[in-house]
Amino acid sequence: MLLPHTDARPGPGRSARAPLALRLARSAAHRPRPAAELAAWLAQRQRANPFEVAEVPFAELTGWRFAPDSGDLVHETGRFFSVEGLHVRTDRGPVAEWWQPIIHQPDRAILGILAREIDGVLHFLMQAKMEPGNVNGVQFSPTVQSTPSNYQRTHRGARSRYVEYFLEPGRGRVLVDVLQSEQGSWFRGKRNRNIVVEVADEVEPHEDFVWLTLGQIHDLLHRPNLVNMDARTVLSCLPGHALAPDPGAGTIGAAVARSSLTEDGAWQPLLGVRNWLTANKAGPTLATRRVPMREVRDWQRTDDEIRHRSGRFFRIVGRRVRASNREVAQWCQPLLAPCGTGLVAFVVRRIDGVLHVLAHADLRPGYRDTVELGPTVQCTPDNFAGPARSGRPEYLDLVLSDEVRAHYDVLQSEEGGRFHHAVTRHLVVEVGPDFPTATPPDYTWLTLRQLTAMAAFSYQVNIEARSLLLCLRALR
Amino acid sequence: MLLPHTDARPGPGRSARAPLALRLARSAAHRPRPAAELAAWLAQRQRANPFEVAEVPFAELTGWRFAPDSGDLVHETGRFFSVEGLHVRTDRGPVAEWWQPIIHQPDRAILGILAREIDGVLHFLMQAKMEPGNVNGVQFSPTVQSTPSNYQRTHRGARSRYVEYFLEPGRGRVLVDVLQSEQGSWFRGKRNRNIVVEVADEVEPHEDFVWLTLGQIHDLLHRPNLVNMDARTVLSCLPGHALAPDPGAGTIGAAVARSSLTEDGAWQPLLGVRNWLTANKAGPTLATRRVPMREVRDWQRTDDEIRHRSGRFFRIVGRRVRASNREVAQWCQPLLAPCGTGLVAFVVRRIDGVLHVLAHADLRPGYRDTVELGPTVQCTPDNFAGPARSGRPEYLDLVLSDEVRAHYDVLQSEEGGRFHHAVTRHLVVEVGPDFPTATPPDYTWLTLRQLTAMAAFSYQVNIEARSLLLCLRALR
Repeated sequence: MLLPHTDARPGPGRSARAPLALRLARSAAHRPRPAAELAAWLAQRQRANPFEVAEVPFAELTGWRFAPDSGDLVHETGRFFSVEGLHVRTDRGPVAEWWQPIIHQPDRAILGILAREIDGVLHFLMQAKMEPGNVNGVQFSPTVQSTPSNYQRTHRGARSRYVEYFLEPGRGRVLVDVLQSEQGSWFRGKRNRNIVVEVADEVEPHEDFVWLTLGQIHDLLHRPNLVNMDARTVLSCLPGHALAPDPGAGTIGAAVARSSLTEDGAWQPLLGVRNWLTANKAGPTLATRRVPMREVRDWQRTDDEIRHRSGRFFRIVGRRVRASNREVAQWCQPLLAPCGTGLVAFVVRRIDGVLHVLAHADLRPGYRDTVELGPTVQCTPDNFAGPARSGRPEYLDLVLSDEVRAHYDVLQSEEGGRFHHAVTRHLVVEVGPDFPTATPPDYTWLTLRQLTAMAAFSYQVNIEARSLLLCLRALR
Repeated sequence: MLLPHTDARPGPGRSARAPLALRLARSAAHRPRPAAELAAWLAQRQRANPFEVAEVPFAELTGWRFAPDSGDLVHETGRFFSVEGLHVRTDRGPVAEWWQPIIHQPDRAILGILAREIDGVLHFLMQAKMEPGNVNGVQFSPTVQSTPSNYQRTHRGARSRYVEYFLEPGRGRVLVDVLQSEQGSWFRGKRNRNIVVEVADEVEPHEDFVWLTLGQIHDLLHRPNLVNMDARTVLSCLPGHALAPDPGAGTIGAAVARSSLTEDGAWQPLLGVRNWLTANKAGPTLATRRVPMREVRDWQRTDDEIRHRSGRFFRIVGRRVRASNREVAQWCQPLLAPCGTGLVAFVVRRIDGVLHVLAHADLRPGYRDTVELGPTVQCTPDNFAGPARSGRPEYLDLVLSDEVRAHYDVLQSEEGGRFHHAVTRHLVVEVGPDFPTATPPDYTWLTLRQLTAMAAFSYQVNIEARSLLLCLRALR
């Protein structure tokens, strides 16, 4: 997969092009076609590529079985992924010990987006891709979204289109290449390669792919469930970009631009943010131990699902898929179905005129590094319904209250290749100047420039905060 | 441990002081006392604080036992660390599968150094610290080198001196704060907090502590086994620093300075380095599984040691320690004793006049992120003695040959709190302009500025490469 370096220096690293941040900002300001037209194109691709997803009991989940010794749900090839048990102990949070199923997928997926200048403006090649867990079938997805099990054709299907651009060095100029975590309560140690490669030459077109500017993608983010999670995480890793805002503009978009550009107006230096995150990574004790599924307490397996006895958290279910435009035409797989709609929210506040987000040090058993920077609130509100207020996440009541001004409130999907109808309400709410800047020790304030800098390296910013970062950039 | 933020902004982040890089460079250029005098002070501290380390069989290793079910070597409190088994499979390197003992230490140690301006020059507070595994007893160590088991006084001893500066926010200005890995073949998932805090006020003096400039520490690095591994890793994480070299100077020190400062003369952009490392992190398959020690194949346990049947790799041995100036006066502990002297070497080459190091993508089972950037060569040469050349590490013969010019060749110690007489030869060798810049895919060239930038984030640069980075900065 890795070819030897040639003696030539890699990539056109020193061209006379404008700085990347400026080219990205121009792409964000360019909207050649309205979102409605793009959504119509997506719907048209969905009609052109019919598919069918059917509920099946585990006994009919072809290719999958419960391992007789462990009770883990595994594929007969040993590849793809498995559902295993995890035992967790921690000294942080309201629950000190629990057992849970968790998805183990040692494969590193490539989440790759091709970029190219068209008429002088950067465009990104987005795929109309069906995933069996999507609430709406097809969403705008990265150019390539594929694991080695796929692109090495473990399933004996077709090779993922365009994957060679990301596997073979020298095919283009790398704009982003970083391993990032995924949902730390659902995946154990999962990491994906988030990569953007810019090519100079034309790319062979295909009817399920479309070149979009950042501005068009931002527009699509104002509609529910159109830009999939994989696309959102890749694009969130792009370097910071914004055109200098009109100093008089009072819009939230201008505040976002200022917060993305400023180095001087930050509440604390970047080293202060890093100090805060390292202290929170080093502080808590988190001991996780892989256990056989049959030893996972409080969870039950029926013919159709694995579920917690309380009915909360999530279920593991089986699905059979028939599709007309995928590498293989038919397959079965388990999906993780969350119970209830998730909520992720950034509280934002202007401090000395500069927009700051309130970040939380988020501990999850599946993180490789214990704690990552997460949104102010990240939970399933249904779990905290009812009169009992104890254990209610900090700031949950605030973000749902009338005391805040919502700038963004859109449902977005988690990845439909592993998650069934997993929808998360994305909220950005602003608090006023009377809101205290003092926080509990596991929260802190940072600018969008700082959040972007942190997201450039692995295991610093969680997938939910990265997703919200992209939504923030979409504000006008 | 974490106190709430106050409403005041953390730290004096916006002072009118000179930039940190310049202050560090001035500290590196300042040598108020010669190395011989500092070495004499260290020897004097050793005489003042007598200690005794005795070999003991496992049966007499008070406080430690082999767990009856697993055979793991554990402390009776369950704290400190344990020696467990690991099963490893990988598709990279000459060996596809093996079992080994490995140290598991979930504790995050604090490796903390206090900094302070004295007469306008940054000094660092170094401790004359004994560790039972040190070949020479006492070495220059960080101000604080302590695990929660220590500073929370699990052993019921005294609290580590100065630890409050690193646990309590607002005690100073944070210059470095990053979690870094340790030896990936000996530790499983270990991470330490590398932290430097600058204080403005005087610090209570103590006879075992001394304030040194970077220049003095660099001088000490030219003598064997005086600056311990923990001090080397913390100092290697400092931001890049160098005074602009005399353009005419032909010294290696001037080449190091230029390579530390330059942004334009790099063989590839930083994104190219990151692309290379991410590709190498994402490429190999590495599956590790914790197993009970009793299932570890090819290793034998006697009354006195755990060893590989080949006599290679390392042994686990027991030691009883009596010390006069430690938190507890007497204790027993296991140590990992490597078989043979290690070798770590950076090949350096001037490309278009700018010094580059040749880095290797180093895969180890204990890394949290599979692969980190390592030195050109990292091995125990004794393991490759004899006529059989197959499996010999790339570039090993080169760095030991007459074809290269050695700029640095000094024995340095691994951490004596876990490792017994673990000594590693540190080499920096230069190759000429005829040496090809083409490399195998798991090697690449980068400047010292780029290496420093990579080392600023977790799990990018391994401990051996960080140690060599500091030695490179010590060249004149």
